Amino acid sequence: MAYAYWKARRVDDQAVFDLFFRKNPFHGEFTIFAGLSECLKFIQNFKYTESDIAYLKNTLPSNVEPEFFEYLSNLTCEDITLYALKEGTVAFPRVPLIRVQGPLIVAQLLETTFLTLVNYASLVATNAARYRIAAGKSNIKLLEFGLRRAQGPDGGLSASKYAYIGKKSQCTFISCPPINQGSEQKHLVHEGGFDGTSNVLAGKLFNIPVKGTHAHAFVTSFTGAEDLADTKIVHKNDPDQMETDFFGKCLDWRTKLASHLKILKEEAHDGELAAFASYAIAFPDGFMALVDTYDVSRSGLLNFASVALALNDLGYRALGIRIDSGDLAYLSRVAREAFHKVSKEFDVPWFASLTVVASNDINEDTILSLNEQGHSIDCFGIGTHLGMCDDSIAPKKNRLKTKLPKFIVTCQRQPALGCVYKLVEINEKPKIKLSQDVEKVTMPGKKIGFRLYSSDGHALIDLLQRPSEPPPEVCTRVLCRHPFQESKRAWVIPSQVEDLYSCWWTDGHLFQDIPTMEETRQNVQVSLRTLRQDHKRSLNPTPYKVVPFRIFQVGVSDDLYHFIHDLWLENQPIGELS
Amino acid sequence: MAYAYWKARRVDDQAVFDLFFRKNPFHGEFTIFAGLSECLKFIQNFKYTESDIAYLKNTLPSNVEPEFFEYLSNLTCEDITLYALKEGTVAFPRVPLIRVQGPLIVAQLLETTFLTLVNYASLVATNAARYRIAAGKSNIKLLEFGLRRAQGPDGGLSASKYAYIGKKSQCTFISCPPINQGSEQKHLVHEGGFDGTSNVLAGKLFNIPVKGTHAHAFVTSFTGAEDLADTKIVHKNDPDQMETDFFGKCLDWRTKLASHLKILKEEAHDGELAAFASYAIAFPDGFMALVDTYDVSRSGLLNFASVALALNDLGYRALGIRIDSGDLAYLSRVAREAFHKVSKEFDVPWFASLTVVASNDINEDTILSLNEQGHSIDCFGIGTHLGMCDDSIAPKKNRLKTKLPKFIVTCQRQPALGCVYKLVEINEKPKIKLSQDVEKVTMPGKKIGFRLYSSDGHALIDLLQRPSEPPPEVCTRVLCRHPFQESKRAWVIPSQVEDLYSCWWTDGHLFQDIPTMEETRQNVQVSLRTLRQDHKRSLNPTPYKVVPFRIFQVGVSDDLYHFIHDLWLENQPIGELS
Repeated sequence: MAYAYWKARRVDDQAVFDLFFRKNPFHGEFTIFAGLSECLKFIQNFKYTESDIAYLKNTLPSNVEPEFFEYLSNLTCEDITLYALKEGTVAFPRVPLIRVQGPLIVAQLLETTFLTLVNYASLVATNAARYRIAAGKSNIKLLEFGLRRAQGPDGGLSASKYAYIGKKSQCTFISCPPINQGSEQKHLVHEGGFDGTSNVLAGKLFNIPVKGTHAHAFVTSFTGAEDLADTKIVHKNDPDQMETDFFGKCLDWRTKLASHLKILKEEAHDGELAAFASYAIAFPDGFMALVDTYDVSRSGLLNFASVALALNDLGYRALGIRIDSGDLAYLSRVAREAFHKVSKEFDVPWFASLTVVASNDINEDTILSLNEQGHSIDCFGIGTHLGMCDDSIAPKKNRLKTKLPKFIVTCQRQPALGCVYKLVEINEKPKIKLSQDVEKVTMPGKKIGFRLYSSDGHALIDLLQRPSEPPPEVCTRVLCRHPFQESKRAWVIPSQVEDLYSCWWTDGHLFQDIPTMEETRQNVQVSLRTLRQDHKRSLNPTPYKVVPFRIFQVGVSDDLYHFIHDLWLENQPIGELS
Repeated sequence: MAYAYWKARRVDDQAVFDLFFRKNPFHGEFTIFAGLSECLKFIQNFKYTESDIAYLKNTLPSNVEPEFFEYLSNLTCEDITLYALKEGTVAFPRVPLIRVQGPLIVAQLLETTFLTLVNYASLVATNAARYRIAAGKSNIKLLEFGLRRAQGPDGGLSASKYAYIGKKSQCTFISCPPINQGSEQKHLVHEGGFDGTSNVLAGKLFNIPVKGTHAHAFVTSFTGAEDLADTKIVHKNDPDQMETDFFGKCLDWRTKLASHLKILKEEAHDGELAAFASYAIAFPDGFMALVDTYDVSRSGLLNFASVALALNDLGYRALGIRIDSGDLAYLSRVAREAFHKVSKEFDVPWFASLTVVASNDINEDTILSLNEQGHSIDCFGIGTHLGMCDDSIAPKKNRLKTKLPKFIVTCQRQPALGCVYKLVEINEKPKIKLSQDVEKVTMPGKKIGFRLYSSDGHALIDLLQRPSEPPPEVCTRVLCRHPFQESKRAWVIPSQVEDLYSCWWTDGHLFQDIPTMEETRQNVQVSLRTLRQDHKRSLNPTPYKVVPFRIFQVGVSDDLYHFIHDLWLENQPIGELS
């Protein structure tokens, strides 16, 4: 395409492209826009290397004129101007996420990379926010364990990064619209993404908290006491108090505990106890044990509690357990019961609130089903299902016979966010792409966009306009029309108007700094807070409120409406029947 | 885990890990093993950098002993030995793909990376082979168009690479078992992966043929003749014959053609004709047009044919069209009909066999459904659905009411190939991981493996044995047992015995060269050929043949069977009811 443009001497043609999606992923009602910072880094470094040129020369037909390669080798993004939503902003179908303006050829060459960078990042960031809402309870932690199932190392890194940007920030929200603090407070904690990752490189590169436990192999690698070299532990608060036979202490505790927990101590695996003791010796302040290698209730729990109480004698508090198989709801309750019993019996209050991590093939459905069954899980480790939209519901035989929340119905044919990159203007002439499917008709021309807020700070609608129109004004009613359905119109009186787009790149330079990951995380929070509650309720079983047209569907101004439709008619031939 | 091992002074412990999967992806009966070469590159370069160590020091608890970091910084894979199937080999559940032997800590540290590298590569390679089988006709081309929907740039590159390794090689098969050439010949062409990619970087890095057409934006960017600068074309075979008004020629042809094809020439879009003409001027030998920007039958086909016939006058042959929306079966037939008509009417024989590429959200289901409907497509461009197993069937409303082949039923909860990496031996003691789910019990100990072939060259079963057992012998019956179901046994008399594992890395060096991508592609072909026909028929509606136990389920020797079960009982506590 680039060569054909060049050959047609369209090097100086000026184009405008919109990058947008047509459908929210996961059958949801919102998308978190992510990937902008990577797009900006890409245009900063955009360049054909000598070896790229050599490859292209070799690959393109031999009659391609050599001057074209010269042109390519001098290509940069210095004439590109890029407008976009702020990364981390809640976004909706048809509202452009990014607008690229500049030379037709260069703007076209950005397409695939931009789509690659935005699609997956936004999908993961959105999914992370959805997991957080599904998890419900404010104190439940979500860890990303997905590297081994990712599309190669880079897919795994991106998943870790974008799952994390949705995380609730510790900082105060400074720039956020006025919200009734009281009623929102309890909801706030539900929002945002993941709390950490097991991907150590992601931790290193993006400063994400690294979390994880040991694997089954760690447990099976121990046979018994003979595998323990050094079983000394120094008391946490008294360096002079040293336990030289920590494993013996664990064995003592096991004998004592077995009768209390009504478990035969002979059934508990000695290798497992040795493995737990070894881990505790290495990490006395971070003891978290995987308890399902042999049998959770007959071996793992008893061994864990024995080591945890031995640690307790030395002033350390264990963290908890991880369960990676079986009936997670049931086993977590069994574990919690045992923790309560031990806590009471041996007067160790903190034992009751030990952490239970669950990690076997967790997806939204599992979490909601666990919520319904009742569980005592404090943390989910999520891997396989984070980076994609899988269709796990319909044919599953054993699931609970309950009404399913809307957002976990099947989303077949949408394993990726389907962002597209469409030409909307060339040399100041608007361009439209028609389609037999109205949903696929593009909105031509350069557009400006505003998010209109209600008096309580909630977002009402995104309004797109022609650039020549004056922006909507606060407390002044403005007509918002459905872009394609003539009868769908509403007057909106905004209490606050936010300009959606800002310039990020122009004249060969960043127009403003690329936000840090921390700033993006804050923006996700701020943006999610402006979503109406009944809107977020579309993410749980409460029926969806009927409104003039679906809130947050994009609206267009009356001007833009006519502009689109005039152009449509102009480009659509009149059929002739005979 | 590494620190806990180190702290327990288990630095010299020798471990054996098996990397395997438990279930074929896509509800199929085979998997193509891929990713080995990347694993080998990883161990060649395995090293903690100074900055890695600095990060770990900062991340691990402060009481971690400094000597551990010194240990890490000197860590290499020189004491690791790696056995594996040859990359590209057809593989089956439970048969280890890779066996890693060496120091416990190092072998453990390879886990996640190996899983990441093997899981996705094998999933894509398998899917590519399945698409090829679904496509059926030998002359149908498959192109990988997936970059924009991949998990970031790296996921896209891997998809391109592993989709391609399944491709039918042009080379002769040299080392392949004796097969009845006659009966296989017609099947051979159905096997293998993709023919090219639209990912130019993948083309550059892996020498994969780069294929693609132009985008809708290319068409919409043209308004008419005014966008064409230079419409000169020189005759292909006569440099002195120059057409100076190629666009005029196209217009003339359009007038002539319109009545023949019964299309109103006023309905055809002038911008589209200009775009096609421009593309043809740039690539007179590679003219392939995207015909659905405005209307395939009322605009795109007429414009394409006009340009193609204008090219024909100058000695060039157009390649064909791409359709990216609408009813692909119907539109492809409409196009083929038009091509036939033009071919006959204007005596241009090659016009009838122009290529029709289809590319809108293609998956296995689409292809099979198109086959049923009857279509005239020669090439599929496949993107979104290549890298994952999506659940596209069940709820789709408009699909044909026909029996679905077994292999495209839903594969919920399996969006990735679930390879695992399990410890099976430590310091020459076998290790077993139990589970309430028998399928999840591991096969302990180091194992050797053989593929047993029938007299007609087809693979019968993979047999795992203890290393101390003699290998099975040709023409001698050997007892193959199901690893966990006592009653499932069969005598097998192999006509050929293939040692499954070879050493790839030992003593800090590659033990043999990493196969080239070309060699791996050949191996995929050779290996797929040895799959029984009725086995491959499990990939189409013909019912699956009943055999003593499912062919290609792994078998174990009698010795290994007892070894597994003795160890199982030893590790499983006897319950007590009271």
